[in-house]
Amino acid sequence: MQKYIEKASVLIEAMPYLNEFHGKTVVIKFGGAAMVDPQIKKSVIRDIAFMKMVGINPVIVHGGGPEINEALKLQKIEPKFVNGLRVTDPNTMKTVETVLSGKINKALVSEFQKNNVSAVGISGKDGLLIEAKKKEGEVDLGLVGDITNINTKIIESLLASDFVPVISPVGSDKEGNTFNINADIAASEITIKLNAAKLIFLTDSNGVLFKEDDENSVISELIPDEIKLLIENGTIKGGMIPKVNYATKAVKNGVNSVHIINGKILHSLLLEIFTKDGIGTIIEEF
Amino acid sequence: MQKYIEKASVLIEAMPYLNEFHGKTVVIKFGGAAMVDPQIKKSVIRDIAFMKMVGINPVIVHGGGPEINEALKLQKIEPKFVNGLRVTDPNTMKTVETVLSGKINKALVSEFQKNNVSAVGISGKDGLLIEAKKKEGEVDLGLVGDITNINTKIIESLLASDFVPVISPVGSDKEGNTFNINADIAASEITIKLNAAKLIFLTDSNGVLFKEDDENSVISELIPDEIKLLIENGTIKGGMIPKVNYATKAVKNGVNSVHIINGKILHSLLLEIFTKDGIGTIIEEF
Amino acid sequence: MQKYIEKASVLIEAMPYLNEFHGKTVVIKFGGAAMVDPQIKKSVIRDIAFMKMVGINPVIVHGGGPEINEALKLQKIEPKFVNGLRVTDPNTMKTVETVLSGKINKALVSEFQKNNVSAVGISGKDGLLIEAKKKEGEVDLGLVGDITNINTKIIESLLASDFVPVISPVGSDKEGNTFNINADIAASEITIKLNAAKLIFLTDSNGVLFKEDDENSVISELIPDEIKLLIENGTIKGGMIPKVNYATKAVKNGVNSVHIINGKILHSLLLEIFTKDGIGTIIEEF
Amino acid sequence: MQKYIEKASVLIEAMPYLNEFHGKTVVIKFGGAAMVDPQIKKSVIRDIAFMKMVGINPVIVHGGGPEINEALKLQKIEPKFVNGLRVTDPNTMKTVETVLSGKINKALVSEFQKNNVSAVGISGKDGLLIEAKKKEGEVDLGLVGDITNINTKIIESLLASDFVPVISPVGSDKEGNTFNINADIAASEITIKLNAAKLIFLTDSNGVLFKEDDENSVISELIPDEIKLLIENGTIKGGMIPKVNYATKAVKNGVNSVHIINGKILHSLLLEIFTKDGIGTIIEEF
Amino acid sequence: MQKYIEKASVLIEAMPYLNEFHGKTVVIKFGGAAMVDPQIKKSVIRDIAFMKMVGINPVIVHGGGPEINEALKLQKIEPKFVNGLRVTDPNTMKTVETVLSGKINKALVSEFQKNNVSAVGISGKDGLLIEAKKKEGEVDLGLVGDITNINTKIIESLLASDFVPVISPVGSDKEGNTFNINADIAASEITIKLNAAKLIFLTDSNGVLFKEDDENSVISELIPDEIKLLIENGTIKGGMIPKVNYATKAVKNGVNSVHIINGKILHSLLLEIFTKDGIGTIIEEF
Amino acid sequence: MQKYIEKASVLIEAMPYLNEFHGKTVVIKFGGAAMVDPQIKKSVIRDIAFMKMVGINPVIVHGGGPEINEALKLQKIEPKFVNGLRVTDPNTMKTVETVLSGKINKALVSEFQKNNVSAVGISGKDGLLIEAKKKEGEVDLGLVGDITNINTKIIESLLASDFVPVISPVGSDKEGNTFNINADIAASEITIKLNAAKLIFLTDSNGVLFKEDDENSVISELIPDEIKLLIENGTIKGGMIPKVNYATKAVKNGVNSVHIINGKILHSLLLEIFTKDGIGTIIEEF
Repeated sequence: MQKYIEKASVLIEAMPYLNEFHGKTVVIKFGGAAMVDPQIKKSVIRDIAFMKMVGINPVIVHGGGPEINEALKLQKIEPKFVNGLRVTDPNTMKTVETVLSGKINKALVSEFQKNNVSAVGISGKDGLLIEAKKKEGEVDLGLVGDITNINTKIIESLLASDFVPVISPVGSDKEGNTFNINADIAASEITIKLNAAKLIFLTDSNGVLFKEDDENSVISELIPDEIKLLIENGTIKGGMIPKVNYATKAVKNGVNSVHIINGKILHSLLLEIFTKDGIGTIIEEF
Repeated sequence: MQKYIEKASVLIEAMPYLNEFHGKTVVIKFGGAAMVDPQIKKSVIRDIAFMKMVGINPVIVHGGGPEINEALKLQKIEPKFVNGLRVTDPNTMKTVETVLSGKINKALVSEFQKNNVSAVGISGKDGLLIEAKKKEGEVDLGLVGDITNINTKIIESLLASDFVPVISPVGSDKEGNTFNINADIAASEITIKLNAAKLIFLTDSNGVLFKEDDENSVISELIPDEIKLLIENGTIKGGMIPKVNYATKAVKNGVNSVHIINGKILHSLLLEIFTKDGIGTIIEEF
Repeated sequence: MQKYIEKASVLIEAMPYLNEFHGKTVVIKFGGAAMVDPQIKKSVIRDIAFMKMVGINPVIVHGGGPEINEALKLQKIEPKFVNGLRVTDPNTMKTVETVLSGKINKALVSEFQKNNVSAVGISGKDGLLIEAKKKEGEVDLGLVGDITNINTKIIESLLASDFVPVISPVGSDKEGNTFNINADIAASEITIKLNAAKLIFLTDSNGVLFKEDDENSVISELIPDEIKLLIENGTIKGGMIPKVNYATKAVKNGVNSVHIINGKILHSLLLEIFTKDGIGTIIEEF
Repeated sequence: MQKYIEKASVLIEAMPYLNEFHGKTVVIKFGGAAMVDPQIKKSVIRDIAFMKMVGINPVIVHGGGPEINEALKLQKIEPKFVNGLRVTDPNTMKTVETVLSGKINKALVSEFQKNNVSAVGISGKDGLLIEAKKKEGEVDLGLVGDITNINTKIIESLLASDFVPVISPVGSDKEGNTFNINADIAASEITIKLNAAKLIFLTDSNGVLFKEDDENSVISELIPDEIKLLIENGTIKGGMIPKVNYATKAVKNGVNSVHIINGKILHSLLLEIFTKDGIGTIIEEF
Repeated sequence: MQKYIEKASVLIEAMPYLNEFHGKTVVIKFGGAAMVDPQIKKSVIRDIAFMKMVGINPVIVHGGGPEINEALKLQKIEPKFVNGLRVTDPNTMKTVETVLSGKINKALVSEFQKNNVSAVGISGKDGLLIEAKKKEGEVDLGLVGDITNINTKIIESLLASDFVPVISPVGSDKEGNTFNINADIAASEITIKLNAAKLIFLTDSNGVLFKEDDENSVISELIPDEIKLLIENGTIKGGMIPKVNYATKAVKNGVNSVHIINGKILHSLLLEIFTKDGIGTIIEEF
Repeated sequence: MQKYIEKASVLIEAMPYLNEFHGKTVVIKFGGAAMVDPQIKKSVIRDIAFMKMVGINPVIVHGGGPEINEALKLQKIEPKFVNGLRVTDPNTMKTVETVLSGKINKALVSEFQKNNVSAVGISGKDGLLIEAKKKEGEVDLGLVGDITNINTKIIESLLASDFVPVISPVGSDKEGNTFNINADIAASEITIKLNAAKLIFLTDSNGVLFKEDDENSVISELIPDEIKLLIENGTIKGGMIPKVNYATKAVKNGVNSVHIINGKILHSLLLEIFTKDGIGTIIEEF
């Protein structure tokens, strides 16, 4: 009997969140360990299936994974990085695109299908979803692209037909040139242009941390001003900086909240959205 | 951490049910102790609010309660019963209708409103929802009515506008005569005519019992043929007989399942619909 | 033959009005003798049925009647008035609500049904139609309420499905507390929020009178400035003052005209709307 | 006061008819004296305007008039008749069409416009409304046509945009040949194909008569079997025979009723439709 | 094989124009020799049929032709002109209207029908499309009208149902008076009010000419400022002046381009719209 | 001038075809040399762009190409064939899918984008478009699949939003297993399920040939019975047999016509659809 009461109370706890997010669009950046470990991947997919079933519209933007490096190695293409950005020559671009859009993207679609969720995998080229141009800068990074426009019509069309869009972060210009797009940026820009309610980054850490190496030192809530301070005083550093910056841009452009959570925790997505404890870091406008 | 995992697993367990009932109409006969005890009433209302929020369309049919007898006593109307049916003279009818439609119905609407659920209280007279005629039979029961037709347009209109209809079981004919209608019958006939997915009777017992006085002897599942046998061999008796008969009629007319559950158990409605254990008795076509 | 020509000329006379009001919403405050005398009540209902049939959308707001005092007397509740306003303690409120929403409202619905008009009786609680709060002031009037908001969604939904809404003037706040609302105010505020074309008060006098006790001294047309003057110079007094004040507010908020007519004259409603003579007082913006 | 009561009673009498015909399509064959006498024409147009305003969809099919013979005379075309049918050579056809579609049709449209009714004049050629072929038979009648198909799309499109269609009875085949079509037949075939509720012939007599020369001997109601008998026994004769035959075909094809009334009686159309006395002859299926 | 390649290249050349005008409305003033020579008329109709089939919405405004003078002569009405404008007394007006709306208009409709294009012929009176008043000025021109308003509802309704509207330039006021309207003005005002993409004048000359009598001296492109200059310096003169003035008004009111082309050149309409050479003069805002 | 007339006549010749196919769906199997030679590929894409612009809905199903063998070689996977069918082990499948869906598919999308046609590349996995199961048979071909169902919802959704769907022939079952699907079969089954008007196979030969090695011996028209005979007597052989068999199945299931044309002829698609000569072989039901 006690078990029943607890079950009911979990459902009842979820109620205000179900109410709040019903019919809303939530963009999820799927990346890191959640893309690699099959167990975690399954759990994330199920969480997204749950969201879909209670009336939320999830939109997935995925990153790459170890398959890209394997494929490059096979082609004997030597990876080259400048300031942490992959220098993308035409051959690299072709391989990256093929693996992203032909392998990783379709594997995610299959996982959704297995959970009775009708997903459609597209790339940023389809319907010219991600319009891009060559990134400018001192160093020539080859086909690394900057987003110039997001055409959301294809996403809106898929959502209207009740599909879950799964997007690989490849962009192109109107002349058909292909560009490598950072998945975090793609996810934030799509969130903004869709006027979505939430953006969730699935990462490998518990959120934004006070102390770099203490996963228990998660900062639960942040506003843009605090982010600025924490970057200045060095608390936020490394790969977390761009993420919180995109988050800042998103909430300043009308997105209700951006969440940085640990994809490796089973059902972290569900808990973040449907329970009052939450998990990870939430970034909101003051 | 363990707590989190349990929370998530309750939600995940609910997933197939959320999926199955999304967009479906479920009729709930609200009666018995659930109408009297304010604590239970609150819990039932919250359960229905939950259903609404995950995309189910609940339709409520309520019975009377002690207020009716109080009002009759106040008017010095002596209750008179024949074979368990209240003989309803015009004065009794007026009092019954006034209390059902003006007091009990509106109090339920207020409870829903408190839970952010937009409810609209109507009676079977509104939009000629429950068309009825005087019950025929050896004994003249006065204004006790038999349903001749259900006009679901008003319910469909309210559902289309996302309201929860709360229905008091008063019927009328086209000449404007008022009839007292049994709430269990009203609920089943409305379920059938709406082509709803489910009908749930909130009662004061744990379901259909093997042994009348052993609340632990609940029969979990029944099909019409078994019901027939159990009535014949006397296992099902008394007030439970009409309920299982309406249930039989409902499942034979396309309703997926009829549930008889104990309204006094907190959140019995939620557990019955969203967990795999269920509670109470489910009646389905074989 | 002469008879035929006269019949035709009445229809032809009605033509411009039929044209003008087709598809328009007209709010009718149903009160006074028209609620008591069954003969008059029938005639008013038929007039409204006529309006419905020629494509006007009538919305009815009804007041109370002698049934309320009877019910209070039965409960031995002593009526208490301050400045003409009923002091409404919780027990009084319960009785008032029960009689308004359970008896008077449903009796009107039955009358419409008899005339083949599909009516739906609701109270201001349904769909939170009349949101209210406790009236402030020097004297504590108990549960007498002031309107804080009108949520017309339920009315619009009923009109869209071709029902005639019949509204009992009970309000509530979001916590589910119940308030007693003046029916004249409820009617005017609903008219304004619905952006209806007309508001008609059915009263027991022939309209606004020049001389209080001369029913033939009706003032046919009034504009807000004249109303102000006539109140200041004492021509308009007593219970007529609030009515003309609500009328002033309505026409200043976009309502085309407010009519004060004698509900006791047979078919006064039809004649006011569909003939060029009119009857009673019409209040319009200059 | 008595006057008021009578006015109201005429309106109340019209109520069931308003209700019955609201939203229905009624085809009116406009011909005879009603096309010639400007006074009568005005009255008929007003009646049709009334119908439009109370929500009926009138469709007008008009015949010719003295203008056709005048125009033929001007061109020195000698009229030639065989069995009462005009032999229509190409020159006659051109003149007939020009007068029907360019003069009579447009004059009717202007009359409607003056009464605030938005009318659109078309011929049976427009949108290939009346598809026809050369009438076969022993005698060659030239361009007299038989209807082979009615394409109601143009009428439905005009009705959907709230216009009154005014149709001149000229037909054509797919090769663009023009044919002279009998207006009574055109009206009946259009009524049938539109699935309209009523067809009304405006004629110069009071209806179907028992005695040819006694305008008071109108037969109020007829069914197809009676028509057959009355033709056989010679009661119905001459030009009335084809009218009652088209009427028979219409009611046997789902048209509720066909009316033959005297267009010369002022407002005969209004009285026939909106009063219980009626005027003229009504033909219905048994 | 060469032939195939040329065929394909014509189609490919048409592609950008097909794309540009798909779903756009194009108004065509049909006049001059194109109305007289049956061969040319056929070719123009086919061109318009082509436009319709590739998804353009053509709207036709036609002028008169020799039939008008023939009809006036028949009636012994002496034509009277003042400053090139026909003095239109009531009898002339009746004849002009009858021939325009009853003969020329319906003949065009038949031509369209023969080409499988569903056309509907209306006049400016229908649906009060062309509202007009008597032209003011020093000389009384009788029933020559000035346009006071264009009510495009009837055109929009016909386009929505996929019909080609064919319009005869007759206007009327709300009192039903008929006015003779210049077809060029009618075409430009309808273009402006419809917010159409293009207006095309089919004339008897190759376009606006540099030298009056040299049909090879066509000016291919003009902007309003140039037009002003060319009128001032006398290059543009006579009947071409009003045409270029209407064109100027049109392009200044949002019409993309106005074309003046030679209707006598076979398929000039097709070539002007679907090939890069064009033909005639195009007038655009700078 | 002669040039103009020829241009116009090509457009006029296209007219009946534009009319016939407007709004129709045409499935194009894109394969063979047309996938390899960049010049031909461009020309095919332009032809399809033309179709889109005149209101046809093209749906593209593409095959593989030399990229697949290159990729397999890179991975040192030895191709293995049984009866002309590739034995597809899991590694081969992964490589085939990646190249088809990630490289060839996205390159086609880019080509469309360059021609201003909004294309969306999907695989048969997306929205479970191509449901498949392991091919049964004597020899185990690994992951070669047979189509069990076509779910056209994703195609219909893309067409409704005006996108051109570009489909890579990979199927999956509900458990998420991936299967290699023959592109010709995929194209025919999709054509049938979409109820499309036409299916066009772009091949490397001029059509079905009378003499295998004489490209001038094309059979212009075939009906299913003739196909049966020509297979039996050995005229049709080799790889053409399955194509004509799918064609037979398609036309027997309601597809109007199937075309086998030479993709290497520039604009063969345009000429086949929009000229009266046609090119290649057309297969229709008798």
